[in-house]
Amino acid sequence: MKQDASADLAMRQAGLRRAYAGVRACSMQLIAGLSAEDCMVQSMPDASPVKWHLAHVTWFFETFLLEPAETGFQPFDPAFRVLFNSYYVGVGERHPRPARGVLSRPALDTVLAYRRDVDLRMDALMDSAQPADVLNLIELGLHHEQQHQELMLTDLKHHFWCNPLHPVLDSAPRSAGPVGPLRWLPLAGGVLEVGYGADGFAFDNERPAHAVWLAPFELASRPVTQGEFLAFMADDGYRRPELWLSDGWDACMREGWQAPLYWWRDAQGAWQTYMLHGEQAPEPHVPVMHLSYYEADAYARWAGARLPTEQEWECAARAGLAAGSGEVWEWTASAYLPYPGFRQAAGAVGEYNGKFMINQMVLRGGSMATPSGHVRPTYRNFFNPAARWQFSGLRLARDSARGEQVCSPAPA
Amino acid sequence: MKQDASADLAMRQAGLRRAYAGVRACSMQLIAGLSAEDCMVQSMPDASPVKWHLAHVTWFFETFLLEPAETGFQPFDPAFRVLFNSYYVGVGERHPRPARGVLSRPALDTVLAYRRDVDLRMDALMDSAQPADVLNLIELGLHHEQQHQELMLTDLKHHFWCNPLHPVLDSAPRSAGPVGPLRWLPLAGGVLEVGYGADGFAFDNERPAHAVWLAPFELASRPVTQGEFLAFMADDGYRRPELWLSDGWDACMREGWQAPLYWWRDAQGAWQTYMLHGEQAPEPHVPVMHLSYYEADAYARWAGARLPTEQEWECAARAGLAAGSGEVWEWTASAYLPYPGFRQAAGAVGEYNGKFMINQMVLRGGSMATPSGHVRPTYRNFFNPAARWQFSGLRLARDSARGEQVCSPAPA
Amino acid sequence: MKQDASADLAMRQAGLRRAYAGVRACSMQLIAGLSAEDCMVQSMPDASPVKWHLAHVTWFFETFLLEPAETGFQPFDPAFRVLFNSYYVGVGERHPRPARGVLSRPALDTVLAYRRDVDLRMDALMDSAQPADVLNLIELGLHHEQQHQELMLTDLKHHFWCNPLHPVLDSAPRSAGPVGPLRWLPLAGGVLEVGYGADGFAFDNERPAHAVWLAPFELASRPVTQGEFLAFMADDGYRRPELWLSDGWDACMREGWQAPLYWWRDAQGAWQTYMLHGEQAPEPHVPVMHLSYYEADAYARWAGARLPTEQEWECAARAGLAAGSGEVWEWTASAYLPYPGFRQAAGAVGEYNGKFMINQMVLRGGSMATPSGHVRPTYRNFFNPAARWQFSGLRLARDSARGEQVCSPAPA
Amino acid sequence: MKQDASADLAMRQAGLRRAYAGVRACSMQLIAGLSAEDCMVQSMPDASPVKWHLAHVTWFFETFLLEPAETGFQPFDPAFRVLFNSYYVGVGERHPRPARGVLSRPALDTVLAYRRDVDLRMDALMDSAQPADVLNLIELGLHHEQQHQELMLTDLKHHFWCNPLHPVLDSAPRSAGPVGPLRWLPLAGGVLEVGYGADGFAFDNERPAHAVWLAPFELASRPVTQGEFLAFMADDGYRRPELWLSDGWDACMREGWQAPLYWWRDAQGAWQTYMLHGEQAPEPHVPVMHLSYYEADAYARWAGARLPTEQEWECAARAGLAAGSGEVWEWTASAYLPYPGFRQAAGAVGEYNGKFMINQMVLRGGSMATPSGHVRPTYRNFFNPAARWQFSGLRLARDSARGEQVCSPAPA
Repeated sequence: MKQDASADLAMRQAGLRRAYAGVRACSMQLIAGLSAEDCMVQSMPDASPVKWHLAHVTWFFETFLLEPAETGFQPFDPAFRVLFNSYYVGVGERHPRPARGVLSRPALDTVLAYRRDVDLRMDALMDSAQPADVLNLIELGLHHEQQHQELMLTDLKHHFWCNPLHPVLDSAPRSAGPVGPLRWLPLAGGVLEVGYGADGFAFDNERPAHAVWLAPFELASRPVTQGEFLAFMADDGYRRPELWLSDGWDACMREGWQAPLYWWRDAQGAWQTYMLHGEQAPEPHVPVMHLSYYEADAYARWAGARLPTEQEWECAARAGLAAGSGEVWEWTASAYLPYPGFRQAAGAVGEYNGKFMINQMVLRGGSMATPSGHVRPTYRNFFNPAARWQFSGLRLARDSARGEQVCSPAPA
Repeated sequence: MKQDASADLAMRQAGLRRAYAGVRACSMQLIAGLSAEDCMVQSMPDASPVKWHLAHVTWFFETFLLEPAETGFQPFDPAFRVLFNSYYVGVGERHPRPARGVLSRPALDTVLAYRRDVDLRMDALMDSAQPADVLNLIELGLHHEQQHQELMLTDLKHHFWCNPLHPVLDSAPRSAGPVGPLRWLPLAGGVLEVGYGADGFAFDNERPAHAVWLAPFELASRPVTQGEFLAFMADDGYRRPELWLSDGWDACMREGWQAPLYWWRDAQGAWQTYMLHGEQAPEPHVPVMHLSYYEADAYARWAGARLPTEQEWECAARAGLAAGSGEVWEWTASAYLPYPGFRQAAGAVGEYNGKFMINQMVLRGGSMATPSGHVRPTYRNFFNPAARWQFSGLRLARDSARGEQVCSPAPA
Repeated sequence: MKQDASADLAMRQAGLRRAYAGVRACSMQLIAGLSAEDCMVQSMPDASPVKWHLAHVTWFFETFLLEPAETGFQPFDPAFRVLFNSYYVGVGERHPRPARGVLSRPALDTVLAYRRDVDLRMDALMDSAQPADVLNLIELGLHHEQQHQELMLTDLKHHFWCNPLHPVLDSAPRSAGPVGPLRWLPLAGGVLEVGYGADGFAFDNERPAHAVWLAPFELASRPVTQGEFLAFMADDGYRRPELWLSDGWDACMREGWQAPLYWWRDAQGAWQTYMLHGEQAPEPHVPVMHLSYYEADAYARWAGARLPTEQEWECAARAGLAAGSGEVWEWTASAYLPYPGFRQAAGAVGEYNGKFMINQMVLRGGSMATPSGHVRPTYRNFFNPAARWQFSGLRLARDSARGEQVCSPAPA
Repeated sequence: MKQDASADLAMRQAGLRRAYAGVRACSMQLIAGLSAEDCMVQSMPDASPVKWHLAHVTWFFETFLLEPAETGFQPFDPAFRVLFNSYYVGVGERHPRPARGVLSRPALDTVLAYRRDVDLRMDALMDSAQPADVLNLIELGLHHEQQHQELMLTDLKHHFWCNPLHPVLDSAPRSAGPVGPLRWLPLAGGVLEVGYGADGFAFDNERPAHAVWLAPFELASRPVTQGEFLAFMADDGYRRPELWLSDGWDACMREGWQAPLYWWRDAQGAWQTYMLHGEQAPEPHVPVMHLSYYEADAYARWAGARLPTEQEWECAARAGLAAGSGEVWEWTASAYLPYPGFRQAAGAVGEYNGKFMINQMVLRGGSMATPSGHVRPTYRNFFNPAARWQFSGLRLARDSARGEQVCSPAPA
């Protein structure tokens, strides 16, 4: 029996080794077409330079994997411990987030050398058999890097948007193709399971699996489109306080919102949108994105509907009914809070998700910038309700028209 | 049958008429011992002058009851429509909240005359039989005034605290008596009902009643005491970031928190607390209050426990197990969001609660400043997690030690 | 000889005693028509409540005169030492300026009792012969109170302006009568004396008298009128950045200035102005006021002229040519800096003026709110260039048309 | 005669052509050792990226020289007109100053190509004889570029300081050598001339030459040293409000100043300073720099002296008595205001200096980063009194001990 477990571990390690090579290579592909200068821009405190992302995900492996494992551990550069720590208080000091853009040194070339150095040392680490907890950390590190791959594109879009030249990145992912007409999918309620309960990888915030009680509801068959959102705008959606949450209306007034982020009117008064691959007119049948929670919520109220809760969304996704997800992150009506029975991991890694469980709303799904394989029904993304620079849209929900249950979702 | 309904209505109207007289008189008792100057202080944008509260609750009756009902309606003063509107966009313009403290005119005497005038006109209104929806609005207005009665004391405490003289209000309510030792009350889970489903009065945010699924849990028999909180402080609770939510730690650093609000060290280094009825040393066996959500959450983590969700709290309260509630508001782990099936009332009154359902956490219970009769198991109070000037404390909860526990709470 | 000096002193003391009674009574007349609530408003950090002014000027006498002189000195209330200290670091702690409006206690009645108590004790002090330095301090205290008399009206105007009811103070001073056509008064330059060099009272910032060299210049015979300023407004003066200093334009954009402070458009689009004695249309022939330095400077540039320096202004005033002064304070082109040879007085009183000599511009003249006897050619008023709530206007100057001009100013 | 003037012009043009080549080459030498990433950092809104400086000074020549002169003018890139306009409202829109750091595009290489292109076109322009006003603009452009050469180093120091790695620029200028003991140089007063009245180049703010009257005074023979400033620090200079202007004390408290900018304590508690060429301990006999006006003023008060006025400084400099100047800019006691008779140039170039004549104090002298040939007795530098990132120190002055004149300065 022990031998079997050992063989399983070995097989898992081999798989992770392949995944490591793949994920790390993927980060490098993302920066094709970017100059060292491009990789250094920080257009706002919330958005980090691409170079910083590249170094930070590498710091994760060096700090949490190599440092405990290597005999006579020598860091690539001792200063990187502080420079590329994001928020792990348990690891020590951090370079202030709004000042990540001043780091012309280390140069991008040095950061790339750092990546290669850590890759070699990780290779060496994986030359010998590792226990399950080390494999778990490697897996966490890879999912962590995948998260930052999406953020690199998300942040870069904001950086480039702030440059009046609106630079174009040819290799940037295109937006989704058009979606079809909206249908309302009825879902039965009852006591259902949500959260991740299987053996594979999931972030701590997706655990534990637990029961919830849901009333019957209906979910839209696809996200709201740009064309639908234009109708909201044309109906004075941005000028009617009765459609908005109070904090949302304040934000709308304070920031002067008149359209989603990255939209502007051209000289002829027509709306244009900035995409990493170029400027273009809105596409009526493509999901709208770059909305804050406030805008998503106001739209839903205007449409006579509401946002789904994250539990509703997840039950529908498990039932295979959230088609079209994967194009935009979808704001849900749920605050980002710990699941019942949530346990924080020990040590600095435990800071990963738990300490942010306040003042944020959950998004579900995934966007065209989300690495493939990183989308799953239990995945919880989360941002402040005023955030607009994510690839964030919405999907409508509504209470079941008929109180009685219509059809049952697939078993959990 | 129709006659019966009519008789019921008449009886209800008679009851409301008595309640109206009582609630309105209660507001007047609250300002005994306060000068016109005292009633005008505004120490921060979040806290309104007492005079403003007195006028605003009166404005509610004039605007929502008298204006639609009186033939040839003449306002007491047309300017009051703007001056004493809190946030009802549907009613029109509002005087800016941070500038309520500049309103030396109307004088307190004028506001009291306004109260008397509206009371007479409300009396006249209640001389004739009113339909149910008018009675509903009167009832809402009375509960609204009761809310503001607590706020008058809450805000006044902050106003007076900002005056180095620390004025004393002899008629202010005393803090609670001492509570006993903490016991853990086990509660079974299952599908339970929360929310207000009966016929009587409840705010819109308490409705509709709906089912939730709860895992078994344990709830503390009483709130955390000042003595317990002093132990947290002595154990460096305000200096250990690992105990805090990230936003909480930022607030703690930014504001320099070292103790609950209204606590300071005297010349000998001993803690003192400011109460409306005077200064005093902390009372070890009395519930601690004037905590933000962040402090409550950090305390719970330090204590190896957690905050209850509002559903857990409510189920325990229905089971009669939340003893000691009514002394301090208790932060729960639940974000303030609409209940499944929540419906906003039509018209400006519908702005009452719905548009604030974001960025706030729910408090349950009630404080020694809450008017008697205003405490009920389904009541949802809500504030920003950084707010400390409310009479806000906490009660601990924890997951059930034995997963299999099935003991049932007392029937609701 | 000694006897003569002694007799002079006695005579001076007798004069000061009469002045004391007069100045103190004048402060009480100012508050006729104001309620205790009115006297407590603080509409912005820069403007203090009337009650605070009344107490602070009294604090000056208690702290600087009575405390050193009275045997076994007992303060009226020990807390007042902190509460009513404006900015004298040498005296100890101060209540924070922006929070002066929260001081409902002490009540206005208590402050008036404080005034009477200090008046009696000052009377007792003046019953016995006092040395010159004590008399100097009394004189300083009286001029100090006169400064605050103007500030009481200045600040009150801002307090009342922030109340949408625009309260009226019947006893408020009226604006000046109309002025005549503008004439240009030629003044010769040369080495001239400015500053106060005589024996009587002057503030430290007016001393010492010293020589300056002035080129010949011309000064307008009277301040700029509201009618002239309306022409500037009609000519897009508030929308042409080339007329403005860079910091001024930033302020204009940030604050949305479109007219002097206290001006607004009525429902018909006509300009109205708020005066303490009531609302009224602009008066074309009356000096314009409530301008910032930036607006005054922009107007002068638009008019093809410039502001006079304070030295030019003073030389003209000494020559009797600044007719019309006394209606509005007039911004000069001079920064508020120490005169050559300026010496700060010893002790806390020395903080009076010196430590503010940065980031401010000098105003000369006086306004209709300036106490009579408080206007003199050497008087230096000073405010931040963005300040608009003072009774501040401007007078034009220009370089002498003929460089060689040597005509002497008209005899004083 | 006309031929002579023409020959003079031709000679002047030839000289300017040589100067153009030299000044432009000098900018390129400054960036030796800097990467494209280094040239892009913007560490605060007040400090621009090196790349932006390089482009902006080039924009000046393209906009003010080439655009009016070239037939069928085609800009190098039309977008640069907005991107590299600093503050010339007359030229049109500007990219917001705080966002200059986001401009990864155009790349540094593109900016260098822009420089080469404009250099070729300027060469072509100077191939034909140009009238005097064109030559004047070229000369202005060269002095403008020299100003920005100093700013490149000044800003770069701040950018690099904000990087915890404290990058070193080998080619950076060293600080001055040690200075000798302080001597007091007596200067007579009287009517003296200041300002630039000769034929050569000077900025508009140095003109016109005009008379001033100065009392006799004494000036220190050299700037204050780091050793002297350490004595001020050791004597609690940063903790004694009585030494400071009121606004200065506020800034000191708000910013937590304890030493000049770029000083910090090492692990042993010893002061270290950051220089572009490396970290080092303070040098006792070298002038102190990176002081705000507030610190310079507090030091002078502590030392029982004062800052000189800019007129005093200039008279001493003309007399050859301001030895040691050229190491640090020296704060003077003078506000930056127009000279009597100041005239703004016509057109956008006229915005150069005049519109900043408010809220700033004058510095005189020059620093080790000032291009040689850019230091002259009439030069007026100016910054906000809180600015510390310039190479700014101070020199003491005091009133003449003996009222009578001691010795005469050299004739103006």
